[in-house]
Amino acid sequence: MVEAMAFPTMEVIESMHQQLSRYVHRTPVVTSSYFDDLTGAHLYFKCEQLQKIGAFKMRGATVALMHLKKHSPIRKVYTHSSGNHAQALSLAAKLLGFEATIVMPHNTSKVKVDAVKGYGGNIVFCEVGYVAREAKLAEIAAQGDSVFVPPFDDDQIIIGQSTVAKELIEQTEKLDVIVAPVGGGGLLSGTSLSAHYFSPDTIVYGVEPSIDNDAWKSFNSGQVQQVSGVETIAEGLRTSLSERTLSVIREHVADILLVTEEEIVSAMRQIWERMKLVVEPSAAVAVAGILRYPELFRGKEVGVILTGGNVDVEKLPF
Amino acid sequence: MVEAMAFPTMEVIESMHQQLSRYVHRTPVVTSSYFDDLTGAHLYFKCEQLQKIGAFKMRGATVALMHLKKHSPIRKVYTHSSGNHAQALSLAAKLLGFEATIVMPHNTSKVKVDAVKGYGGNIVFCEVGYVAREAKLAEIAAQGDSVFVPPFDDDQIIIGQSTVAKELIEQTEKLDVIVAPVGGGGLLSGTSLSAHYFSPDTIVYGVEPSIDNDAWKSFNSGQVQQVSGVETIAEGLRTSLSERTLSVIREHVADILLVTEEEIVSAMRQIWERMKLVVEPSAAVAVAGILRYPELFRGKEVGVILTGGNVDVEKLPF
Repeated sequence: MVEAMAFPTMEVIESMHQQLSRYVHRTPVVTSSYFDDLTGAHLYFKCEQLQKIGAFKMRGATVALMHLKKHSPIRKVYTHSSGNHAQALSLAAKLLGFEATIVMPHNTSKVKVDAVKGYGGNIVFCEVGYVAREAKLAEIAAQGDSVFVPPFDDDQIIIGQSTVAKELIEQTEKLDVIVAPVGGGGLLSGTSLSAHYFSPDTIVYGVEPSIDNDAWKSFNSGQVQQVSGVETIAEGLRTSLSERTLSVIREHVADILLVTEEEIVSAMRQIWERMKLVVEPSAAVAVAGILRYPELFRGKEVGVILTGGNVDVEKLPF
Repeated sequence: MVEAMAFPTMEVIESMHQQLSRYVHRTPVVTSSYFDDLTGAHLYFKCEQLQKIGAFKMRGATVALMHLKKHSPIRKVYTHSSGNHAQALSLAAKLLGFEATIVMPHNTSKVKVDAVKGYGGNIVFCEVGYVAREAKLAEIAAQGDSVFVPPFDDDQIIIGQSTVAKELIEQTEKLDVIVAPVGGGGLLSGTSLSAHYFSPDTIVYGVEPSIDNDAWKSFNSGQVQQVSGVETIAEGLRTSLSERTLSVIREHVADILLVTEEEIVSAMRQIWERMKLVVEPSAAVAVAGILRYPELFRGKEVGVILTGGNVDVEKLPF
């Protein structure tokens, strides 16, 4: 079935990006002589931690609702997430005139609950675990008046996330490589599509925590492998790929690089200390990949996606 | 004697700013809908935490060495500092072909020692306290081959720091107010001079930790008051004004606002969490002042100087 999927086209990405631009920030691209010296590469950091809600997820959720608004009369949406997608869907719903309901485990931290409430999202708590969550989602689905917006396994979400790399390409001279972290693969598949369409000589690497290398295994086997459940510090990446994201990634991504937890924390710390940017562990994963495999990047023009900055400053890993 | 001092002129500031621009970053100005909503003002944050060495001090030190290079054959400089001025003088010396020696108490944290070494500065340790420090400085002075570069009590330093506000004015539409923290007064006096010359209708406030309100007392009495020794979390501001900085500040600053330690930490945390910017406590002081006295800023266009981002991420106050 994988082969039969049609990927989002260049035209669709261009059109949605243009429409999206009134709802999200065109985030800045910054450089760092510290990291350039360290790697021997020229790095261009795309700052999605400065995006609305503090992460690129705002793009996908907004495109999904723009699409829904055009093609359906339904104005209620729901999802499950305790992370950035929850905040993104809540704010996108507010901006586009939807009502959003977020299913979250009851032990979700108060910071995250408050963030969703602050953006106007409704919260429905459920017991911890997959079964309880699915039961709660089925309950909402059974009401028949709202649409599910998945965190990554959706063409509109992929189109939204693809606009990060599209902008990065527009904001820089010719890039040799773009590096992005990979969790569910929404960002990485979108990134690789934008590189393919808008800068075809640019190759794309994904980077994943080696502690739970399901994307690496999926990429190499061609079959979606499930996460092991071992929890990386990069919370946002604790997700398996889907058939949809894997098929794009197998087609357009050069390789998946693996990094240790220590390498993630070290990269995060260096970004904070030297670049003065607050980034979350998931965002540091891409930088950790560049520091771990310098031979792949030396002398090259390298785009890096800093995916988000939502981190509990009371619970830092250093 | 205060009345007799001639302040740096507009022409000198313009000329030095132009020459300085090849050595330092023209740092970005960013906005925040979060803080705008919170204050009812339009805030423009000048990001000197993104300056070389992570703080505005780079400007003053560089201008001091540019001036020295033009007017003296001596190529050795020294100062005392365990903070940003130490790093600034070290890097400025490297860029301009000087040799810098920094006197520091022997209990200075390794992070700060390493930073100075990393920029190529020589370190001379001394015992803790004013007497030991002055003795060590006198020893270096007695060698007769190097020039002392003070952290703030110097026209060239003031000229250098004045370029922060000059740029901020250039990078924004008409500002009603500029807010800067005050320690020794190098930044605040330079800021008020730039407002006076380049945007004469813009008023300037200084903000100081109330726990050691020496600048406030100096401003109101007209006499330089010494710091009490009670240590604010805003390390960079643990300094008294000088006659030189006080005279400028009395002439061109509207008022000095006071904020508590709690207000400083709260402002710092909000800047980290909502703006995703790493700033040091001293930088949060100006923002704390705006949050503490919203009636002074509501409805206005307000420039704020984020002075630096050098903070030990292992010892955060939250």
